[in-house]
Amino acid sequence: MEDLQRRADTLIEALPYIQQWAGKTIVVKYGGAAMTDPQMQDNVAQDLVLLRYVGINVVVVHGGGQRITEMMKRLGIEPKFAGGLRVTDAETMEIAQMVLVGDVNQQLVSLLNAAGGRAVGLSGKDANMIISRKKESSEGDLGFVGEIVSIDTEVIHVLTEAGFVPVISSIGGDAEGQSYNINADTVAGQLAGELQAVKLVTLSDVAGLLEDPDDPTTLISKLTVSEAKVLIADGNVAEGMIPKLESCIQAVAGGVERAHIIDGCTAHALLMELFTDAGIGTMISTE
Amino acid sequence: MEDLQRRADTLIEALPYIQQWAGKTIVVKYGGAAMTDPQMQDNVAQDLVLLRYVGINVVVVHGGGQRITEMMKRLGIEPKFAGGLRVTDAETMEIAQMVLVGDVNQQLVSLLNAAGGRAVGLSGKDANMIISRKKESSEGDLGFVGEIVSIDTEVIHVLTEAGFVPVISSIGGDAEGQSYNINADTVAGQLAGELQAVKLVTLSDVAGLLEDPDDPTTLISKLTVSEAKVLIADGNVAEGMIPKLESCIQAVAGGVERAHIIDGCTAHALLMELFTDAGIGTMISTE
Amino acid sequence: MEDLQRRADTLIEALPYIQQWAGKTIVVKYGGAAMTDPQMQDNVAQDLVLLRYVGINVVVVHGGGQRITEMMKRLGIEPKFAGGLRVTDAETMEIAQMVLVGDVNQQLVSLLNAAGGRAVGLSGKDANMIISRKKESSEGDLGFVGEIVSIDTEVIHVLTEAGFVPVISSIGGDAEGQSYNINADTVAGQLAGELQAVKLVTLSDVAGLLEDPDDPTTLISKLTVSEAKVLIADGNVAEGMIPKLESCIQAVAGGVERAHIIDGCTAHALLMELFTDAGIGTMISTE
Amino acid sequence: MEDLQRRADTLIEALPYIQQWAGKTIVVKYGGAAMTDPQMQDNVAQDLVLLRYVGINVVVVHGGGQRITEMMKRLGIEPKFAGGLRVTDAETMEIAQMVLVGDVNQQLVSLLNAAGGRAVGLSGKDANMIISRKKESSEGDLGFVGEIVSIDTEVIHVLTEAGFVPVISSIGGDAEGQSYNINADTVAGQLAGELQAVKLVTLSDVAGLLEDPDDPTTLISKLTVSEAKVLIADGNVAEGMIPKLESCIQAVAGGVERAHIIDGCTAHALLMELFTDAGIGTMISTE
Amino acid sequence: MEDLQRRADTLIEALPYIQQWAGKTIVVKYGGAAMTDPQMQDNVAQDLVLLRYVGINVVVVHGGGQRITEMMKRLGIEPKFAGGLRVTDAETMEIAQMVLVGDVNQQLVSLLNAAGGRAVGLSGKDANMIISRKKESSEGDLGFVGEIVSIDTEVIHVLTEAGFVPVISSIGGDAEGQSYNINADTVAGQLAGELQAVKLVTLSDVAGLLEDPDDPTTLISKLTVSEAKVLIADGNVAEGMIPKLESCIQAVAGGVERAHIIDGCTAHALLMELFTDAGIGTMISTE
Amino acid sequence: MEDLQRRADTLIEALPYIQQWAGKTIVVKYGGAAMTDPQMQDNVAQDLVLLRYVGINVVVVHGGGQRITEMMKRLGIEPKFAGGLRVTDAETMEIAQMVLVGDVNQQLVSLLNAAGGRAVGLSGKDANMIISRKKESSEGDLGFVGEIVSIDTEVIHVLTEAGFVPVISSIGGDAEGQSYNINADTVAGQLAGELQAVKLVTLSDVAGLLEDPDDPTTLISKLTVSEAKVLIADGNVAEGMIPKLESCIQAVAGGVERAHIIDGCTAHALLMELFTDAGIGTMISTE
Repeated sequence: MEDLQRRADTLIEALPYIQQWAGKTIVVKYGGAAMTDPQMQDNVAQDLVLLRYVGINVVVVHGGGQRITEMMKRLGIEPKFAGGLRVTDAETMEIAQMVLVGDVNQQLVSLLNAAGGRAVGLSGKDANMIISRKKESSEGDLGFVGEIVSIDTEVIHVLTEAGFVPVISSIGGDAEGQSYNINADTVAGQLAGELQAVKLVTLSDVAGLLEDPDDPTTLISKLTVSEAKVLIADGNVAEGMIPKLESCIQAVAGGVERAHIIDGCTAHALLMELFTDAGIGTMISTE
Repeated sequence: MEDLQRRADTLIEALPYIQQWAGKTIVVKYGGAAMTDPQMQDNVAQDLVLLRYVGINVVVVHGGGQRITEMMKRLGIEPKFAGGLRVTDAETMEIAQMVLVGDVNQQLVSLLNAAGGRAVGLSGKDANMIISRKKESSEGDLGFVGEIVSIDTEVIHVLTEAGFVPVISSIGGDAEGQSYNINADTVAGQLAGELQAVKLVTLSDVAGLLEDPDDPTTLISKLTVSEAKVLIADGNVAEGMIPKLESCIQAVAGGVERAHIIDGCTAHALLMELFTDAGIGTMISTE
Repeated sequence: MEDLQRRADTLIEALPYIQQWAGKTIVVKYGGAAMTDPQMQDNVAQDLVLLRYVGINVVVVHGGGQRITEMMKRLGIEPKFAGGLRVTDAETMEIAQMVLVGDVNQQLVSLLNAAGGRAVGLSGKDANMIISRKKESSEGDLGFVGEIVSIDTEVIHVLTEAGFVPVISSIGGDAEGQSYNINADTVAGQLAGELQAVKLVTLSDVAGLLEDPDDPTTLISKLTVSEAKVLIADGNVAEGMIPKLESCIQAVAGGVERAHIIDGCTAHALLMELFTDAGIGTMISTE
Repeated sequence: MEDLQRRADTLIEALPYIQQWAGKTIVVKYGGAAMTDPQMQDNVAQDLVLLRYVGINVVVVHGGGQRITEMMKRLGIEPKFAGGLRVTDAETMEIAQMVLVGDVNQQLVSLLNAAGGRAVGLSGKDANMIISRKKESSEGDLGFVGEIVSIDTEVIHVLTEAGFVPVISSIGGDAEGQSYNINADTVAGQLAGELQAVKLVTLSDVAGLLEDPDDPTTLISKLTVSEAKVLIADGNVAEGMIPKLESCIQAVAGGVERAHIIDGCTAHALLMELFTDAGIGTMISTE
Repeated sequence: MEDLQRRADTLIEALPYIQQWAGKTIVVKYGGAAMTDPQMQDNVAQDLVLLRYVGINVVVVHGGGQRITEMMKRLGIEPKFAGGLRVTDAETMEIAQMVLVGDVNQQLVSLLNAAGGRAVGLSGKDANMIISRKKESSEGDLGFVGEIVSIDTEVIHVLTEAGFVPVISSIGGDAEGQSYNINADTVAGQLAGELQAVKLVTLSDVAGLLEDPDDPTTLISKLTVSEAKVLIADGNVAEGMIPKLESCIQAVAGGVERAHIIDGCTAHALLMELFTDAGIGTMISTE
Repeated sequence: MEDLQRRADTLIEALPYIQQWAGKTIVVKYGGAAMTDPQMQDNVAQDLVLLRYVGINVVVVHGGGQRITEMMKRLGIEPKFAGGLRVTDAETMEIAQMVLVGDVNQQLVSLLNAAGGRAVGLSGKDANMIISRKKESSEGDLGFVGEIVSIDTEVIHVLTEAGFVPVISSIGGDAEGQSYNINADTVAGQLAGELQAVKLVTLSDVAGLLEDPDDPTTLISKLTVSEAKVLIADGNVAEGMIPKLESCIQAVAGGVERAHIIDGCTAHALLMELFTDAGIGTMISTE
């Protein structure tokens, strides 16, 4: 009985936050270890379903580079990278799309549905959602690595209004039907802006942005967009963090109130970020 | 941080229950000490607002006999009772309406709104919601004590669909505009049926129905409608419990799945009833 | 038969006015003797219901100072006034709310419903409609006399769209749930502006604004806002008329086309004002 | 002022009737002298527009045999009749349609619009509303005299929901586009049934059904369907009245509560019928 | 089978054009020989119905001067013209309205419905659609020849949204219900602008605008508004073409993208114009 | 010009069929060579997009066994079959889902979008659309070969009402998120019934059902359900045709009017089937 009381108290403590976010849109970039560890997967899925049930329009974006690499190796193809980007020839593109849309995406859909949600998987090619084109690079020809030309959010609105949770693979297409491999952080950042989301939450493998990447106690809790840009320009951001931080900058520039990088491997990190004052991880905002 | 984790875990434990009740209607009969003790009031208000936010259509019904008696005494009028019912002459009816609609109801509305809800106070006379007539009694003429002729739920639907929480005083009216004092348990029971609610939850001052009214360890957790009727017929129900139990019987007869009598003075009893398997208090159902 | 013909002719004469007002919103400030005399009550109720049936969105605002004073005296409390305003300590506030919301309001609801309408009583605390704060006064501390901070008309729109007639007590609340006693003319004037009403009609005990308050033949039929302000500044308005006239000024400043002060004791004065060219009473407009 | 009072009283007397009919559909068969006399026309138009403004869905059906005959004579064609029906060869059909749809109908539309309504003229061919076929007759070949096969009320619903008053010429069509001349009483009677109207009101040149056609004091106020059938079978109905009475019988058989034959030349006869208890003219109902 | 294949290929060739026009509004001015020759009538009707089925909001405007003249002659009245406009006395106006609304319009409705459409005939007087006034003329008093004061498109939107095809006679009315005879090209041109149509297509008896009116090989395919004005000013447009060209100029000035004059006697000219890149006839656009 | 005329004539010939199918739902089972040959793909995509534009709700279901086999071979895994069904161990299931959802489905989406449509790819796991379970087989344990437990069509309705074309992979899921490989013909047949489609059209590699499988001239044009069952029972259906024919039988049993097996390699076979009286291929109906 005492335990029941404590539980009820906890639910009540969440009430002000539920009131704050109800009816708003939140984009979650799902990735890293949180996407591969079964226990972490369940935790994230429960968080996302709970958010949907308390009235938040949840939109999930995912990548899956590691799974693409695995499948390429199983097929005897050696992945190539240039400047941190996957060189994507036609065969690689075919494999990337197959793995992201047919495997990673469907696993997330399964997880969310098993947790009681009603998820619908989408690629950026569905409903012509993400129109993209070849990304020019100083690293040479990267093949079908793409950048975003425009985003049409109609199918997302149609699905969220009907209570579904869209789960989006970071694949774009052009008018001729050619697929492009787009960085998932970039998709999440730009989509959050297009949807006028109140938050972009990026799940990463670390606690957030660290002043000293090797020292987890040096977490930067709060960062303005201009401070973030200086950090990147000065080379003070770990390489893997750069696209995440740039995605946050882009989101805030696009009108999103706050962007967050949090540790997806902490159980229920999403709830902790949304349902406490302090928040967790690193928060990027205009000022 | 550990504390945050525990909180998040608790929210997640509520998820299956939220899924179960979302979109359903629950009628709460509010009364007893839970309605007078400030701390208990806040607890109940928070519970009701939380239920609304997780998608439950909450409808509150209240009485307030004690407050009517207090006001009568302040006005130098001696309350009279016959067979447990307040003999309600014209002056008493005027005071009862004034106290219930203008005082008790508005206090509940204030509580719910201060807790973040959007409550709207109603009497059964508003929108011709509760059509009533004089209740004939073997105890003689009880004046304007009323019974329900019919309930028109349109204004409740209009308000709940717009996200409001209707708070209803147990006053009815007839075609000529005469007010009637109706037992609040009766209103709650019949209204729950008309609304096809999934639950009627009655807040009382005790833990539920007790086999031995003097021994709180003899709580009856579960009761069928026919068992409940036998208990009443055999005189084994404490007098104050009879209208509450009859209200539960009426609700279940009207199609409500489950009716509950719980202790409104236990902090967050409503949440504990709805968000745990075991439930608390006494549950009445068809079988 | 001839009589029938005359009746039909009269209905037809109303047609151009019905066309003019159909679909528009009209706020009626109900008060004075029209609110206490049973015959006058019936007349006003019929007028209001007829207006609703010919397609006008009718919103009623009422006060009830006299009834509050009566109840205070019954309770042995001496009312105190300062600068024409009721000094409202906590006990007075409790009584005022009880009388206005639980008694006066419910009587109006009964009257309208008996006349065939579908009225719903509201206080400014319902649905957080009227957010208010303590009114500072040069007369010293007036207690819980309030002024309006903001008005949220959502619940009014929800109810009028469903065909109901909202009847509003001039009580406001703040974020903590404290009630405030607000002048009903002020509520009516500001609400008319927020609702973008075409008319505010104030029912008073006299024929309108008189040049010589003692001479009913000196009715001022038409007044611009600036003329009205000069009249007040010059001290040429009877004290009881000042809040009514200020309410009209406020309404017109808020965008209401025309504000009227008419004699609520004339049978069917509302219809006469709306359904004749000449109108009755005093009309205040921009120019 | 006294006059104003009397007018207001009259409006209020109409209130119970307005409540009774608001939101219901009433079909008016317009014909006879009421359709040709300018003063009568204005009266009827005002009545119809008033009914629309107090929330009644008004649908008007008209014929115009006299005008067809006039035009035929102007064109040097001799009208022929058989058994009371116009023998309608191709040329006659062309003229009938031209006169009804292009002249009579448009005049009614003009009248209603000048009275403040928003009328839309329709023939039964518009939107395939009245599908008809050649009427077989014991009188021999009547040409394009038609009977009704089916009625599609969609266009009527679309227009009345948008606040328009449909004015319908009694012309039908078949799948090949051939026009048919249909008795307007028949169209009104059957259409009233299809629309589930509460009333069919037929405007005629006499006060109603008379026991002695030559004695206006012998008005039959009330008639059951079976009594009406007996009257016709016994030859006790004036010839011109037979189609009107049959139309009423058909309407009531189709589910219309009450059908009326009233004197369209009495000023505002429609209002008098609808807005008094006694009603005027002859009323036909099930029992 | 080969033939089937060719048919399917043709349908597929239309696909890009269907995509281009779906959901858009197109006003078609119907007139000339295409309106009198039965084979041509069927062709045009099929075209219009097909356009409606592939998602285009089709609105048809027609005149019918020749039919008016015929009827006047049958009635022994000599038509008079001044400056190319019909001098329209009261009797002529009556005949014009009767012929246009009751005859020509209903024939078009029949044609469209026989082709599988759901057409609804309207005059500009219906629903007060076309408010007009007497047109002053340098040619003297032309009687009831009218010009357009304003157009209210509500009834057109109500009907097209419900899937109907409005067919409009070029008759206008004023507030008193007086009818006016308006040039149908003028109605079509102005209506296209009010509806923000993407196209006005005028069906004429010739292939389009010819440099040399006697030489059909001198078709002008494309014309800017300013070029068109110069052509008229220089007297290089055949008299019958002037109102058509002015109507196109007016439409384009009103915001219509493109206006076309095409040969209504060419089978399926409408489809050919809409469903080919080259188009047919003369096209007028801003530049 | 003559060519334009012929094209227009062809469009007009399609009009009656467009009228017949507009607003109806048609399920297309896409498979065989039509799904692999680029030219055939384009043809089918154009047909599907055209159908959508003329108002038909098109739903596409696809399998892709050949592509699964190819990918398994690339991964060095030997496909196993039992009784015509793919033995589907966990690894095979993963590959099947990846190929169907991530590759075949996305190619169809690209094709439809490149043809001007707005396609959205779905698996049966999205939105819990196809709930399935392990299919018991007399051939032994087939692994994750599934059968359908239930279909929830909500996401399909949401998407078709918004104008999208759902493209569905024949993958189902259970409550725990396990994927099942379901025969695409079975999915199409059952889904057509659930959607109350008017037609199921199965694209195959042959002209339809042949009396003599080796003789294309022995096409059976029309077949009742009972005749079809006899054919199967008697072993007179080619093995590859059996699931297609059973799917048609199931659809018709589920309420679909007509089911068709046509040659997907004939250019625009879908249009030819829908837009001609004769139809092509084999048609199965109740009688």
